[in-house]
Amino acid sequence: MTLRRTSRRLADGREIIYFDDAPDAPPRTAVDSRPLGERIPAGHIRRDVLTGEWVAIAGHRQTRTFMPPKDECPLCPTGRGSVPSEIPDRDYDVVVFENRFPSFAPVAQEGAGTAYGLFEHAPALGRCEVVCFTSDHDASFASLPPHRVRTVVDAWADRTAELGAMDSVQQVFCFENRGPEIGVTLHHPHGQIYAYPFVPARSSALLGRARAHHERTGRLLGADVLAAELEAGERVVVDGEHWTAYVPYAARWPVEVHLAPRRDVPDLVALDDAERDDLARVYLDVLGRLDRYYVDEDGEPRTLPYIAAWHQAPAKVGRDVSRLHLQVFSILRSPTKLKYLAGSESGAGAWVNDVLPERIAARLREVGA
Amino acid sequence: MTLRRTSRRLADGREIIYFDDAPDAPPRTAVDSRPLGERIPAGHIRRDVLTGEWVAIAGHRQTRTFMPPKDECPLCPTGRGSVPSEIPDRDYDVVVFENRFPSFAPVAQEGAGTAYGLFEHAPALGRCEVVCFTSDHDASFASLPPHRVRTVVDAWADRTAELGAMDSVQQVFCFENRGPEIGVTLHHPHGQIYAYPFVPARSSALLGRARAHHERTGRLLGADVLAAELEAGERVVVDGEHWTAYVPYAARWPVEVHLAPRRDVPDLVALDDAERDDLARVYLDVLGRLDRYYVDEDGEPRTLPYIAAWHQAPAKVGRDVSRLHLQVFSILRSPTKLKYLAGSESGAGAWVNDVLPERIAARLREVGA
Repeated sequence: MTLRRTSRRLADGREIIYFDDAPDAPPRTAVDSRPLGERIPAGHIRRDVLTGEWVAIAGHRQTRTFMPPKDECPLCPTGRGSVPSEIPDRDYDVVVFENRFPSFAPVAQEGAGTAYGLFEHAPALGRCEVVCFTSDHDASFASLPPHRVRTVVDAWADRTAELGAMDSVQQVFCFENRGPEIGVTLHHPHGQIYAYPFVPARSSALLGRARAHHERTGRLLGADVLAAELEAGERVVVDGEHWTAYVPYAARWPVEVHLAPRRDVPDLVALDDAERDDLARVYLDVLGRLDRYYVDEDGEPRTLPYIAAWHQAPAKVGRDVSRLHLQVFSILRSPTKLKYLAGSESGAGAWVNDVLPERIAARLREVGA
Repeated sequence: MTLRRTSRRLADGREIIYFDDAPDAPPRTAVDSRPLGERIPAGHIRRDVLTGEWVAIAGHRQTRTFMPPKDECPLCPTGRGSVPSEIPDRDYDVVVFENRFPSFAPVAQEGAGTAYGLFEHAPALGRCEVVCFTSDHDASFASLPPHRVRTVVDAWADRTAELGAMDSVQQVFCFENRGPEIGVTLHHPHGQIYAYPFVPARSSALLGRARAHHERTGRLLGADVLAAELEAGERVVVDGEHWTAYVPYAARWPVEVHLAPRRDVPDLVALDDAERDDLARVYLDVLGRLDRYYVDEDGEPRTLPYIAAWHQAPAKVGRDVSRLHLQVFSILRSPTKLKYLAGSESGAGAWVNDVLPERIAARLREVGA
């Protein structure tokens, strides 16, 4: 399969990149004719002095697009709706562009209130990108054909390599928020990429543990965890040629599944062709199971809201001990009830899971295609 | 003011403690006549090997009480509703009892699936308590008179001392979840206390930073932060005699305010009489402001859902460098919109706040009584 990559600029200077896998795709030359004016800069970051974590302060995002009517969808190709969209061309396979309301961007504000001794701040440099998985407004990631998922994987890898090489970027995070229950403001199937100017808290925790394990054993923690899950067996959901999907031993969400490659790789960039193709197969298999996980009162499958989070090695540090994995999880704890992150989780940082991980795995095996 | 403390047992052996401040309160001698059977044990904890954090696995909690009709409220005194409640007596001022569906308890399960080398588990020992702030079902914490808040503070301090002394307990966490938007399942005004058998993630982060700061400067981080906020001034909301309320420099929630005492104290137990009385005043002042923070379309105040989280020194470690503070925050980012914890927050652990902390503080000052 050949992939054609076309980089263009939107009216306010933001980059848009078309990833076309169809051999007959026309050249992507359409011009963005909207009167957008200057691009909107990102805000700044402040360090939470009590925890050491950086927080992005992005006041301008309060006005971002919220559930527009379908014929004004900014992620459909231009021409389908009543107004020009973020994608000037009349069609696309997969497209990535810089978010118009970014938390992190190449242009960011300096200001941060009065900073006294203890208080650290910096411009929110980095980049926030939107990844449109398909031009079909009513599709979902789970409904994509495998070759299109492969194109998405290639797009993620492309962005990880390019964003990770930027001086300001410490971590490239590819993710998908799916479903109104977790606050998704656009229905069109899409994911996002955040290129952070710091190593975020979870990445930092993963790195700390991976480094300690490597120092103690000389081995990769991620590899040892996969081996242990395969040996235990009871939480394995799909065991593909190059990828394994399993419910982690200490799952913290009511539905949670991890996908890990057989081979030690730090990030999506390092995956070879066979691994990328197998990822498409295993991931689609898992997403199909997730949409059959719950059934409503009438016995109909309940489309699952989820967050899919790619944990890659940080861009500049710890690359020798980090190991790629995907974490997919849902806040739905029954067909109708949400798990809320209340006092214990949001206040103390201690998760309570009302569902036994082995039960999650058994259900995911039960709803195989 | 004298406080009378009466410890009793519920039908299944759980402890209930009445804290009465009314001089004419009758003796609390009522017997729990419900046929409850054996007490429900807690589950177990598993260590998330990738992050090092402990996760509580509590399968039995899926069946817990969910928004009962008012006349079956388990937190009203027995006699007010149609069924006997969790509180056998016919009235109370403040009452604390062990949660019937506990995440942590003195009795807990051993089981944890097959544990291979990497996987660590332990019984979920500890204690989960419910704190009823008033016998008035339709009241709220913000509507309590100051002397009753003082009784709640005394109850928190009592529980912190007693629970912290238990061998299994590493951290005592007093908190209130308020509002259906964050998943509160009982309307009656109440908070909770979790006594964890581990130091939770946020406590651990706070301790790590406090210890590093102390080693570097010989001073308490919490004291230096308070001094810096007082010097900056622009985020201070209420400056009382013994307590200061301020919006933290790197606020991560759309509404967030911290309360810190003037004096260096590790926990609620160490507060003297004057500090406890002033806390009642300052906290009520802040809660009143929070309920006036947003107004709806008709200009009516919008009752604010919030989480109030007491960050105390861990029970057994780091007590010399930790400093008490209260963190109150809301997920409401406008009168009608919630902040969702999606990919960046729940996946990567990186918070994005759409509201400038100085703007939060300005609004909180504006809505003073």
